[in-house]
Amino acid sequence: MNLSRNLKNLIFLDEEGNEKQRKRSMAAHPDDTQGKNDFVDLTHDPIDVAQLYGKVLSSAAGAVASFVGITRDNDGGKEVTKLEYEAYAPMAVKTMHEVCGEIRQRWPDICHAAIVHRLGVVDISEASIAIFVSSPHRKASLAAVQYAIDELKARLPVWKKEFYVSAENGPSWKANKEANLHVAGPTACK
Amino acid sequence: MNLSRNLKNLIFLDEEGNEKQRKRSMAAHPDDTQGKNDFVDLTHDPIDVAQLYGKVLSSAAGAVASFVGITRDNDGGKEVTKLEYEAYAPMAVKTMHEVCGEIRQRWPDICHAAIVHRLGVVDISEASIAIFVSSPHRKASLAAVQYAIDELKARLPVWKKEFYVSAENGPSWKANKEANLHVAGPTACK
Repeated sequence: MNLSRNLKNLIFLDEEGNEKQRKRSMAAHPDDTQGKNDFVDLTHDPIDVAQLYGKVLSSAAGAVASFVGITRDNDGGKEVTKLEYEAYAPMAVKTMHEVCGEIRQRWPDICHAAIVHRLGVVDISEASIAIFVSSPHRKASLAAVQYAIDELKARLPVWKKEFYVSAENGPSWKANKEANLHVAGPTACK
Repeated sequence: MNLSRNLKNLIFLDEEGNEKQRKRSMAAHPDDTQGKNDFVDLTHDPIDVAQLYGKVLSSAAGAVASFVGITRDNDGGKEVTKLEYEAYAPMAVKTMHEVCGEIRQRWPDICHAAIVHRLGVVDISEASIAIFVSSPHRKASLAAVQYAIDELKARLPVWKKEFYVSAENGPSWKANKEANLHVAGPTACK
């Protein structure tokens, strides 16, 4: 995943809910949370975990912890074939930056953080969200990753549409089970 | 990191403490902890985090958590130039498998686990240990990675030699600060 490729794939929903290309000035904001090296991104491209790992490396870092959320082949007893994600992008990017700021306040020795959420279709075993955090010692990075995924699951304005193997189960839009959102999501599909 | 490359690089210490090539039959043991897909390895090669991530993917996994321990450029106020690791390899491999077994007992829904420790010289920002765990939901993989690194830091018979920038500080062998080992390590270097 490189930045120039991502720029053209970043999207937002306008006030009528139409998906539009994001302007270049809104694109991925590296290095802008409290002057530290945070990388936050929404992208339609597959998430490249090796590149995210590389983004948080630092000569002062002795630890990198990560969490990657992945499309699995079942949910609630139903066989899933793929997921499709939509976001209220400006709020999602803002929330990801807020979470970066919160982990830096709680664990001030964190070196770098990277949070990426994928949008659009995400096939089985592909990543929908990835969080990488580096720190001099392990405790900060491990705790920060745990905190970040818990907060993002609750606060990110992201909805997923599940597609099932069985013809009896039409695809359905879902907010995350842990979501505590104040933004209306897409209406349920037929 | 591929298996055939690793085989020729795996080493063990014989009874006199001499480093020897491990026999092919002792090499990396995928799939042999309680019949689950665990991957355990000691290697002189750089650790490839993308390949380890790939090893724990499963269509039933919705989460991959990881921890990577890395050489950082300072320790105890001294500038570090590189680390060098040695292991009592048969015991280290056994311990890594034990830890895989323990995380499966504690979090039975874990899909796959991979633990790799590097030996020999590990430069700044290179990985010395990597742990990847997949599970259907995030709690198991995050908790298992935390448990695994805590246990491995305490129990792995691995020693590191620190090399410093300052000529006043000669290189020194260290057990991990958290180590609780019952095996004698290499003697301190002059």
